[in-house]
Amino acid sequence: MRFCQRLNSQNKDNFYMATPDSRILPLMIDAAKKAGDLIRQNFRNTDSFAEKTSHNDIVTQTDLDSQNIIHETIMSGMVALGFDANEIGFVQEESNDDVVKKHTFIVDPIDGTSNFSSGIPICGVSIGYAQDKELLAGVIFEPFSQTIWAAEQGAGAWTESALKGKRALPHLTPKEAKRWMVGAHFNSTEIANEQFVAYQKLYPNVRGMRNIGSLAVDLAYVTDGILDVICNRGCYFWDLAAGSVILNELGGQIFDLTGSPLQFDWENTKKKYEIIVCHKDLISQVQTLTT
Amino acid sequence: MRFCQRLNSQNKDNFYMATPDSRILPLMIDAAKKAGDLIRQNFRNTDSFAEKTSHNDIVTQTDLDSQNIIHETIMSGMVALGFDANEIGFVQEESNDDVVKKHTFIVDPIDGTSNFSSGIPICGVSIGYAQDKELLAGVIFEPFSQTIWAAEQGAGAWTESALKGKRALPHLTPKEAKRWMVGAHFNSTEIANEQFVAYQKLYPNVRGMRNIGSLAVDLAYVTDGILDVICNRGCYFWDLAAGSVILNELGGQIFDLTGSPLQFDWENTKKKYEIIVCHKDLISQVQTLTT
Repeated sequence: MRFCQRLNSQNKDNFYMATPDSRILPLMIDAAKKAGDLIRQNFRNTDSFAEKTSHNDIVTQTDLDSQNIIHETIMSGMVALGFDANEIGFVQEESNDDVVKKHTFIVDPIDGTSNFSSGIPICGVSIGYAQDKELLAGVIFEPFSQTIWAAEQGAGAWTESALKGKRALPHLTPKEAKRWMVGAHFNSTEIANEQFVAYQKLYPNVRGMRNIGSLAVDLAYVTDGILDVICNRGCYFWDLAAGSVILNELGGQIFDLTGSPLQFDWENTKKKYEIIVCHKDLISQVQTLTT
Repeated sequence: MRFCQRLNSQNKDNFYMATPDSRILPLMIDAAKKAGDLIRQNFRNTDSFAEKTSHNDIVTQTDLDSQNIIHETIMSGMVALGFDANEIGFVQEESNDDVVKKHTFIVDPIDGTSNFSSGIPICGVSIGYAQDKELLAGVIFEPFSQTIWAAEQGAGAWTESALKGKRALPHLTPKEAKRWMVGAHFNSTEIANEQFVAYQKLYPNVRGMRNIGSLAVDLAYVTDGILDVICNRGCYFWDLAAGSVILNELGGQIFDLTGSPLQFDWENTKKKYEIIVCHKDLISQVQTLTT
């Protein structure tokens, strides 16, 4: 449990040393499950949505309600654990007042809003946790299959599903290209053409491409050996924070398009990222096959 | 119940007139659910697969087992209902001895084998029924969400899911293009380029594109108002038979690329089709936006 040791060693004088900070991940999981209950309840019960930046970028009331329930669950839970409310911040997709604090939670209340709104039962609730801007824990919850993927830095990663029970996630194994399943997103219109050209080049070399409509679930699928590669040219901190912690435990990585490990910009929490996700040993091969 | 009347009027002298042929659809649903149980049991329990035509066209033991259980359930059930076994034929994805008879069942035991094999929990069991080469009933079952979509010709269509219960499917409503969710398949390498060009043209006009990896589920989603359009350039009778019956009840249609209603070739049950699926009133608009 390097995670707890590390926190403890940084917080020698803190009163909560006696109870390890591994209490934070269960709180995040509780919040994600509550949000998931709400998502399942509201699924196909309403068609209402609002456009954000364009006709293919939308928000529903359930996104906002999910974000609220996550915020409330985490904030009240952290305070009950003895943390100072003034030291707790949130970066949230559906919010314009992101605040980075000592303890910061990076929240996507529904990753896959278009799926949810259209009636496709695939989406993810994604919650990352950082202390002093270092990502230390992450959970992705898929409400329809009721599957959790989670990790604490240095303590390994695990998954639990209604269908298959709970198990540790093993380290990723890099497969040969013709066995790759690729998460192939279509992003905003401006960069769609470049992206299509890359996919067109990659497609004949791999087993298949899927666009299931949720990057958080795609990231979870990479941690679980289901997908091997993700290409995405329009994503955000809240899509990636939780997944990056889980991936890091397993030999996976989020890269920028130059092939360098992605650096999150804590000064601009709304920054848009272009990414490749894969096993660390595959990045140069993915780049060769897509560019 | 026009379906039953119609069968009865064609079978005046048949001893099973007294019990309507609407007994056939429940038998198909029973077979699909048994196959679904098998699919769920075997999901992520084995990685074994064999390549068929190429590295991205595979078959697993579960495909074959699912096909067998469907065949046995339907054959024994039909015989128990009093049908002559010599008049019952099967067109099956994983079989080289298709036989078209008076009563023919068109079976895809797992539509979405690559998903199943990779661990993506989305696939469909698809069973169509034709009497004298006329498609009269269809069922699509998605084993992970445990959702049924079904119809008998002239008797309307319905769906039932673990999450949302049972309800009649309403007639489709043609939406404006910017609200369309498109099922955008990537098919065989030879025609992938043409297909990418079409998607590239369509993408900016619609809400989104998804490639969830199962055409049967995509068809079910169109019947359910979840997807609005499907473009697919490499599919088969067993992918389409059940879906076409359900769609026909609701104002949807499977078209060939010229915009004519698709005609199945009963002489060549392994024929490959290129299709567009949408509401009947949208076909010319889909063609304009993709070609």
